[in-house]
Amino acid sequence: MTGRLRIRRPDDWHLHVRQGDLLRQVLPLTTAHFARALVMPNTVPPVLNAEAATAYAAELRAVAGDRDFLPLMTIQVTPATTAATVGAAVDAGVVAGKLYPEGVTTGADVGGVRNVEALWPTFGAMADHGMVLCVHGELPSASVLAREEAFLPVLERIARAFPSLRIVLEHVSTAAAVAAVRALPNVGATVTAHHLRLTIDDVLSDRGLQPHHFCKPVAKTAADRAALVEAATGGDPSFFFGSDSAPHPHARKESAAAPAGVFTAPVALAVLAEIFEEVEALDRLEAFVAEHGADHYGVERNQGFVELRREAWTVPERYGDVVPLAAGQSLAWHVADDADLA
Amino acid sequence: MTGRLRIRRPDDWHLHVRQGDLLRQVLPLTTAHFARALVMPNTVPPVLNAEAATAYAAELRAVAGDRDFLPLMTIQVTPATTAATVGAAVDAGVVAGKLYPEGVTTGADVGGVRNVEALWPTFGAMADHGMVLCVHGELPSASVLAREEAFLPVLERIARAFPSLRIVLEHVSTAAAVAAVRALPNVGATVTAHHLRLTIDDVLSDRGLQPHHFCKPVAKTAADRAALVEAATGGDPSFFFGSDSAPHPHARKESAAAPAGVFTAPVALAVLAEIFEEVEALDRLEAFVAEHGADHYGVERNQGFVELRREAWTVPERYGDVVPLAAGQSLAWHVADDADLA
Repeated sequence: MTGRLRIRRPDDWHLHVRQGDLLRQVLPLTTAHFARALVMPNTVPPVLNAEAATAYAAELRAVAGDRDFLPLMTIQVTPATTAATVGAAVDAGVVAGKLYPEGVTTGADVGGVRNVEALWPTFGAMADHGMVLCVHGELPSASVLAREEAFLPVLERIARAFPSLRIVLEHVSTAAAVAAVRALPNVGATVTAHHLRLTIDDVLSDRGLQPHHFCKPVAKTAADRAALVEAATGGDPSFFFGSDSAPHPHARKESAAAPAGVFTAPVALAVLAEIFEEVEALDRLEAFVAEHGADHYGVERNQGFVELRREAWTVPERYGDVVPLAAGQSLAWHVADDADLA
Repeated sequence: MTGRLRIRRPDDWHLHVRQGDLLRQVLPLTTAHFARALVMPNTVPPVLNAEAATAYAAELRAVAGDRDFLPLMTIQVTPATTAATVGAAVDAGVVAGKLYPEGVTTGADVGGVRNVEALWPTFGAMADHGMVLCVHGELPSASVLAREEAFLPVLERIARAFPSLRIVLEHVSTAAAVAAVRALPNVGATVTAHHLRLTIDDVLSDRGLQPHHFCKPVAKTAADRAALVEAATGGDPSFFFGSDSAPHPHARKESAAAPAGVFTAPVALAVLAEIFEEVEALDRLEAFVAEHGADHYGVERNQGFVELRREAWTVPERYGDVVPLAAGQSLAWHVADDADLA
């Protein structure tokens, strides 16, 4: 195995970076590896319109400093999101609107949506303005392990009703979702690093319940993971990388009620390289992390490159007070940083 | 609804009370409600023979003090358990031998069993001596949610090979296990209070991951729970109460790797009364908690009574440093204690 892999600078098409201190702590770990990231709107309060998105983007750029990094902004789609909201947001550079079914994820209790067809006019405006619809695809009324599959008929209804609307089914976690995405021409999907690595047995583990592996959608079975690996590594342009990296202070995770979210920003590329190598698809890693997403969103692919090196390193137990995926474990690949390249 | 229910003093046919300080903390919560409890052998080190069982029983009796309480002792069945071990244990009053498939639960890494047929001579000796075989029925090689069902063919093989061996499938968690127990004449099953109350959605919860709801076997689907409720409340003498109450200090539960176990000793009867009342089977509660188990084990039913009162109370957030099931929640029934009855 040769030791180096040079790929186009990647994008993260699904990122949580929070605000304030936590933002300052985690954003540099993304800007070190990624040229752009689609930043989720579930802040407190949520990003609901052009004004809030513009203010958040300014905060992100201030924290990113002189790194070559472009935050791509989103608004949350709620029953209050009008065609005018959409138009103004797109004019302000907002790329996507995020739909959370009610009650399924952080922030989804604010403006979550029960009756998706009430949003038909909004979706129409999004299609007209070229705003991408990002969907957290879980039906809250179903059991936690069945929610994604139960949502797929809703996804199909939206996709068929708005064939010119570009849709992204976020953080797919099941073989059923992979099949649905393949069948719908205007739907793409993000795949996270942790859903490619974990199954439900890594959450409900023999080593004890693992809050740092708990996310929504929950990691599923080995067969589901195999379908995700095939989707991510198989070259299908409908599938691209979105980390869903979601930092929570370790004290909140190691508690009687651990919030959902896996923190992967600093390890995602290394984890992906290991997975792609395992299935002998390292030559397709670049397309997954740096091409398919840009193409689906209709933006230019990035200039510049990052270099991955096949040199084992041990993932830190914590970055600040956040525990990353694979904490304390050895990973075979790492991203060459500025010092390596100097 | 009338407010009082007087029932024969119950037994807990599956209990963990640990040792030392924790034992002193939790055992009185069992002796306050239960006349007898089958005490699991997965201490550190495990209870493997008559001598260890006798010593542990003495420790339990010393802690129980002058409460009217009888600990029923078990040994762990391992590849080193000979016919002589079984005979000596039965002579010392040991009631049951507990089989842990390797790697599935606390203590199972010590003397767990992979090749169950290597134990045929031991099972024969248990049948001959009238020692009950208690089985943690999960096949470790299966995925965590499929392990119990995957174990059922092993259970059936043992039960059919030793028709005179009395077997208990412990803490059943699936509809499939309920059906298997119904079909095997020499197999009974314990049902816990928490498996009657929780599903996997209470572990992987919308309110955050719940370590205090994490146990092995993991709570399953709503359909599985419904089958357990039907088994427990339907009058079938194959099903009886075993709490599997398993205390862990809250700091270990609220950690990056929470051990499996739900602490239910002080709330189990109240939880059961609520569940039996919901399905209009309060008249069958006594049989489930005080008759079926004794009959399966071939011991006398208890003398004396406990009284349950339909008066709401709020479960404490902690007993000592252990968080109970339903902590901070209101329960409709409570067990009248000595003070109430005075």
